[in-house]
Amino acid sequence: MKLSTQPYKGTRDFFPEDLAIQKLMFNAMKKICERYGYVEYDGPLIEKTDLFRAKSGEEIVNEQTYTFTDRGNRDVTLRPEMTPTVARMIARNRQELAFPVRWYSIPNCFRYENPQRGRLREFWQLNVDFFGKDLFQYDVENIQTAAAILLELGAKKSDFNILVNSRTLMNAFYKKLELTQEQSHSLSKLIDRKNKMSSDKFETAIEEIVKDKKTAVMTFLNAKNMAEIKDNFGEMEGLNRLEQTINKLKENGFSNTLFTPEIMRGFDYYTGVVFELFDTDPKNPRAIAGGGRYDDLVGLFDVERVGGIGYGMGDVVLRDFLDIRGLLPKYTSTTQVYLCALSENELNTLDTIAEEFRKSGISVATIYEIQKVPKHIKRAEKSGIENFVCIGEDEVKNKKYTLKNLTERKEKTGFIKDIVKILQS
Amino acid sequence: MKLSTQPYKGTRDFFPEDLAIQKLMFNAMKKICERYGYVEYDGPLIEKTDLFRAKSGEEIVNEQTYTFTDRGNRDVTLRPEMTPTVARMIARNRQELAFPVRWYSIPNCFRYENPQRGRLREFWQLNVDFFGKDLFQYDVENIQTAAAILLELGAKKSDFNILVNSRTLMNAFYKKLELTQEQSHSLSKLIDRKNKMSSDKFETAIEEIVKDKKTAVMTFLNAKNMAEIKDNFGEMEGLNRLEQTINKLKENGFSNTLFTPEIMRGFDYYTGVVFELFDTDPKNPRAIAGGGRYDDLVGLFDVERVGGIGYGMGDVVLRDFLDIRGLLPKYTSTTQVYLCALSENELNTLDTIAEEFRKSGISVATIYEIQKVPKHIKRAEKSGIENFVCIGEDEVKNKKYTLKNLTERKEKTGFIKDIVKILQS
Repeated sequence: MKLSTQPYKGTRDFFPEDLAIQKLMFNAMKKICERYGYVEYDGPLIEKTDLFRAKSGEEIVNEQTYTFTDRGNRDVTLRPEMTPTVARMIARNRQELAFPVRWYSIPNCFRYENPQRGRLREFWQLNVDFFGKDLFQYDVENIQTAAAILLELGAKKSDFNILVNSRTLMNAFYKKLELTQEQSHSLSKLIDRKNKMSSDKFETAIEEIVKDKKTAVMTFLNAKNMAEIKDNFGEMEGLNRLEQTINKLKENGFSNTLFTPEIMRGFDYYTGVVFELFDTDPKNPRAIAGGGRYDDLVGLFDVERVGGIGYGMGDVVLRDFLDIRGLLPKYTSTTQVYLCALSENELNTLDTIAEEFRKSGISVATIYEIQKVPKHIKRAEKSGIENFVCIGEDEVKNKKYTLKNLTERKEKTGFIKDIVKILQS
Repeated sequence: MKLSTQPYKGTRDFFPEDLAIQKLMFNAMKKICERYGYVEYDGPLIEKTDLFRAKSGEEIVNEQTYTFTDRGNRDVTLRPEMTPTVARMIARNRQELAFPVRWYSIPNCFRYENPQRGRLREFWQLNVDFFGKDLFQYDVENIQTAAAILLELGAKKSDFNILVNSRTLMNAFYKKLELTQEQSHSLSKLIDRKNKMSSDKFETAIEEIVKDKKTAVMTFLNAKNMAEIKDNFGEMEGLNRLEQTINKLKENGFSNTLFTPEIMRGFDYYTGVVFELFDTDPKNPRAIAGGGRYDDLVGLFDVERVGGIGYGMGDVVLRDFLDIRGLLPKYTSTTQVYLCALSENELNTLDTIAEEFRKSGISVATIYEIQKVPKHIKRAEKSGIENFVCIGEDEVKNKKYTLKNLTERKEKTGFIKDIVKILQS
C-alpha cells in the first residue's frame, strides 16, 4: 500500500512560499514586541495535564486537547494555549526575575477541533505578556503592541477596531443588578457566545438567566459609549480606569478604539480590562487578537502573587486578515543568485565564484548540471530566484560576469564586487 | 495540592537568557543555509504513525516515539525526526517543484528516551536537504554547510572533524568478502554501535558475524586513508567518488576532513556518502551533525523517484560544543533602553519619548513606577538592559536626555536624535 502524501487533518505543510508568509507575520510580531521592550522566551510543547486542568479548565482539557499517557504512565497534554506554561515559568523563577517582566513567544499550539475557516488543529499564536504593577499605562501599552503589529504589516487603522471592555466593570454591573454568582457566571458565558446565535435567541436566553432584569442588561450591552452607561447606571467600579485606558489609546492615535460591553473573553482568569482586535471586514469574523488583565496567574504554584496583562494573536486569522486586504506579497526566494555554467569546462570555477559572493553576504544556489540557458532560467524563475549568472569561457578569462535580473529583465556586467554592490542596493 | 513549577521530564523552559542562545545557534544555521541557496520550509509536528513506520523503522516507532490515538481513532506520532515529513512534502509537490530543491528547517522533535547528556525528549534539529541530481559537488556543498555553521558560530577548524565514509564502498567491501545479506546488515548495525562497547567486545562480536573474515574487516575499519584500502583490497565501487568528495572538501579549506570507515549512520535509507561532524574534545562524545546521501526517499509515495543528500544538527549537542569552547556570549537583552521618570510629573511624557525612540528602530522598555534611581538601575541590570534614561524636570524642559551605558559606566547627554545615533552605532 502506498502512503498518503497529505498532512494530518487540521495541520499544514509549509512549503517555502507558505513559510515566507509565516515569517513575514512572525518578523513583524518580533520586531514590534521587541521595540516595546518585550523579550522572547519559549516553553515545552508537552506539559503535564494537571497544569491545563488547573489553568485552562476541565472543559478544554476533556474535549479540545491532545491528551495521552506517556510510556512512564504520566498524563500529558500538547499545549492548547501558552498562558499556563508562562504562568508556570514565572512562578518557577519568581525570586530571580526583575519585575516588570515583559515576555513574548510564538509557540505552536494544538486543539482537537473540526478544521474550519480561521480554526485549525495546529496553529501558531503570538503571546505577549506583561507581569508587574497594575497601572493603566501598562494596559495601554500591551493593547497598543497588538495594533502596532497590524500597522507594521501594512494594515490601515480603518481595517480593524480595538474593542475594549472591563471585567471589573462587568462585575460591578452584576452587583448593581444584584445578580447571584451563578447568574453572573451564566450571563458572562452567554455574552461570550453572543456572535454564535441569533439576536432573538440571545435575548430569550438572557431573560431565562436574569428574568425581569433583561431590559437593564440589554441597555448595558447596547451602550455605544461610557457616557451612556453612566447616564443609565451611575458610577461603577472599573468605569474610570477603563475610560483612562481608552482615552490614552485614542490620544496615542488609535481612534479605532471602541468601548464594547459585549467583549467578555472565554477564560475565567481575567479580572480587569479585556480586549479584542477585530477585522472591519465581515468576511473575517473571528478576533485577530484577544486578551486582558489577570490578577494572579501564579497563585496555584505556592509563590507570591503577581498580576499582569497579556493577549494572544493567532496565525490563521491574521493570515486571512492580510489576505483579504491584499497585504500578502508575491513570493521571492531568500536565494538571491542562481549560478550555473555554460559547459563542463567552467564547472570547476563555480565553487570559487559562489564563495566570493557568499563572503559578501549574497546567497547563491550553484547548479552543477549542464543545460541550455533558457532551461536554467525557467528553473530559476520557478524557484522564485530573482537573479541569474551563467559562467562561460569569456567570464572565466575576464573575471567579468553578467547579472540578469529576471523580474526586471535587465542585465548588468561587471566584476564580482560590482555585482555584489548591485545586489546589496 | 499546589502544582509543580518544573517542566515535563526531558523538556526545557527557555527563559530569555536560554532562548538567546537558541536564537544565536538558529540564526547562524539560517544565515549559512540561505547563503548556500537553501530555503526554509516547515511541516506539522503530528503525522500519521504509518509514515514513521515506513521511513524511520518499527524499532524507533515502537520504542522511542510519542505515539497515541487521537479522538477520531487515528494512530498519530509526534515526529522523532524530520526526514519522513520532508520526503512526504517532496512527494506531494513532486510535479510542481523545480529541481534541484534545497530545503532547510529547524523543527522540534520528540523521542521518548531517558534524558542524559546530549539527549533530551524534546530537542530541535536543523535539517538541510538537497534533492536532485547525484553529483559529488552537491555532496561537498551539503557537508560544507554543516562545517560553515560551526565556523559562523566562532569555532575553529581544529575544534571539530568531518568524518566521511560511503555506503556504496561498504557494500562493495561486503560483496568482495562475499558476505550474505544478513551478515552485511548485522555487521553494519554492529559498526554503528562501536562507540558503545569495549574494543574486545566489538572484535568478538565481529567474529561471531563474519567468522574467519574478521581480520579483513578489522584491516578495513582501521584504515587511516583510502590508499590503505586500495593497497589491501584493490579497486572498489564508491572509492573514487568518495576520494573526489574528500579532496574537494580539503581543497575548499576543510583539511579536517577524515576518511573514517566506521561511520555508518543508523538509518537504512542511506546509499552513498555518509558523514558526521565530531567535536575533537572527548567531553562531547556525540555527533554534532550527521547525514548522508539517499537514493530515493519518495518511492513509498507512488511518485517518480528523486535522490538527494541531507543531514541533521541537534541543538543539545551543538550547545555543549559551544559551551566547552567558551563560545556562548554573556546575555544582553534585546531591549536597548530602560526608560523611567523621576516623579509623577514626568510620567505623562514617557509615552511620547518612547515612541520617538521606537520610530528610529530603538527598543525601549518604559517603567511607570516611581522609585529611587539606584533601584531602577538595579532592575535594568537584572533584566540585562544595557542603557538607561531617566526623565526629570530639566529633561522635560530642555528636551535633552542623559543616556547611561550600564556596562561601560559612561554617560552622554543630547537630544533624542543624538542618543539614537549613539545607540545605532
